[in-house]
Amino acid sequence: MSEFTDALRVSGAVRLADIDPAATPGSAGSKREGAAALEEGGARLAALQERLFAASRGGGTRAALLIVQGMDTSGKGGIMRHVVGQVDPQGVAIRAFKAPTEEERAHDFLWRIERALPGPGMLGVFDRSHYEDVLIHRVRGLSAPAEVESRYGRIVAFEQGLLDRGIEVVKVMLHISREEQGARLLERLDRPEKHWKYNPGDVDERQEWDAYMEAYEVAIERTGIAVPWHVVPADRKWFARLAVQELLIEALERIDPRWPEADFDVAAERERLLATG
Amino acid sequence: MSEFTDALRVSGAVRLADIDPAATPGSAGSKREGAAALEEGGARLAALQERLFAASRGGGTRAALLIVQGMDTSGKGGIMRHVVGQVDPQGVAIRAFKAPTEEERAHDFLWRIERALPGPGMLGVFDRSHYEDVLIHRVRGLSAPAEVESRYGRIVAFEQGLLDRGIEVVKVMLHISREEQGARLLERLDRPEKHWKYNPGDVDERQEWDAYMEAYEVAIERTGIAVPWHVVPADRKWFARLAVQELLIEALERIDPRWPEADFDVAAERERLLATG
Repeated sequence: MSEFTDALRVSGAVRLADIDPAATPGSAGSKREGAAALEEGGARLAALQERLFAASRGGGTRAALLIVQGMDTSGKGGIMRHVVGQVDPQGVAIRAFKAPTEEERAHDFLWRIERALPGPGMLGVFDRSHYEDVLIHRVRGLSAPAEVESRYGRIVAFEQGLLDRGIEVVKVMLHISREEQGARLLERLDRPEKHWKYNPGDVDERQEWDAYMEAYEVAIERTGIAVPWHVVPADRKWFARLAVQELLIEALERIDPRWPEADFDVAAERERLLATG
Repeated sequence: MSEFTDALRVSGAVRLADIDPAATPGSAGSKREGAAALEEGGARLAALQERLFAASRGGGTRAALLIVQGMDTSGKGGIMRHVVGQVDPQGVAIRAFKAPTEEERAHDFLWRIERALPGPGMLGVFDRSHYEDVLIHRVRGLSAPAEVESRYGRIVAFEQGLLDRGIEVVKVMLHISREEQGARLLERLDRPEKHWKYNPGDVDERQEWDAYMEAYEVAIERTGIAVPWHVVPADRKWFARLAVQELLIEALERIDPRWPEADFDVAAERERLLATG
């Protein structure tokens, strides 16, 4: 089980250059075995999610939140489709955070995050998140350095607040190599049915690769206090999906949701039902 | 293709008692063959949904909306899980309409519906809908008869407006037998892990079965003008899922979404990307 997570969890400082994006730690499998494992894990994930959802109908207040960060093409969409897509869509709330709207910019950076948090019983998923406010904001100078500096501590306090409210949080950075990103962007250009996924701005961001890696290192080191980070090697899509699935399964196992007790008299209801013929 | 839909589409008056809830029109298959067909159809549905989503990124404004109505235990949740769950969750917005909140009650009955409509490129799914306002409201007298009476025409106008805005709408009534509902409710009582799905109010509603069937007949006859109704026999879950899947596939085929054209110079971007090394 936690072969994955032990190897992926980061505590303290991290040097991304020392983590091989093509690694498959804790998994000796091949792409094909990975696909089989992903399907098998999907059944476990779906069963746990159903219990989480059910528990909330009995008054349970716990929820789960998966935060997915990563460079363009790192596979965030694939995680949504192939891992999050394995559970009942009625119990999932996916939110993709794009460049903030005018209304969002008029508020504190955590305002739109707070509004997107999962309710009781739900699995919330963030495709990008408040971490953009210390990543692109640092690299592109969208906020003053002192403002960015202040955000790390505020993020830690915010995430501690999520835990205090019973939200189990999983933070993942999908770690791809610069070479793999180049290949994936090229594929988007060379296949007309993938053009819609390509944005000229992606190349602008790619030109700041080293600055982004540094911004990730700082963010990971400074915000792993309440909720630890997991750096998931993502050059092999099958491995990244399997790893995130396992992290989700473990998070739900920590919640250990139980079927709620009936809040009605089962025997009496049985009689009442049978009387209807 | 439309063996299903031709047989399920209703125009004008309908007598639900004349439609066998255990029928499998247009499908000679068994439960096992149905499961295989459902998986195969899932790939087609997912491919169409991806194109719908992609088209919106190129400025396309079309969207799809599936409205699912049916008595308790008719399988609405199973449609969400097993059909809607087959497509990329990033492109789906499911909304379950429960008893209205105080804020919702302070507005017109279509207010909360309007706010839940799918945006461009999205597949919206309503688990119950504005039809509750002419079903339970009629049966339980929650609104005055004249008010209920006025709603049929307003629903037709509202749905015509959806079509005018480019929203392709599919309306489905999951048609189960009273006997099958009894068996499914009993199963919820007899299996502790299903207790959370049981609500004593379900038996109260069951006692009004005939009144509900009549309310459905009136609603179907009076609101099938802009968007036709489909009555889907639902005693066999595999058939109902397959039928709704096919209805969705056909709706997306009517939209016939196309991959958007690149709004950038592909050759120039290719050069710019390769220059980054």
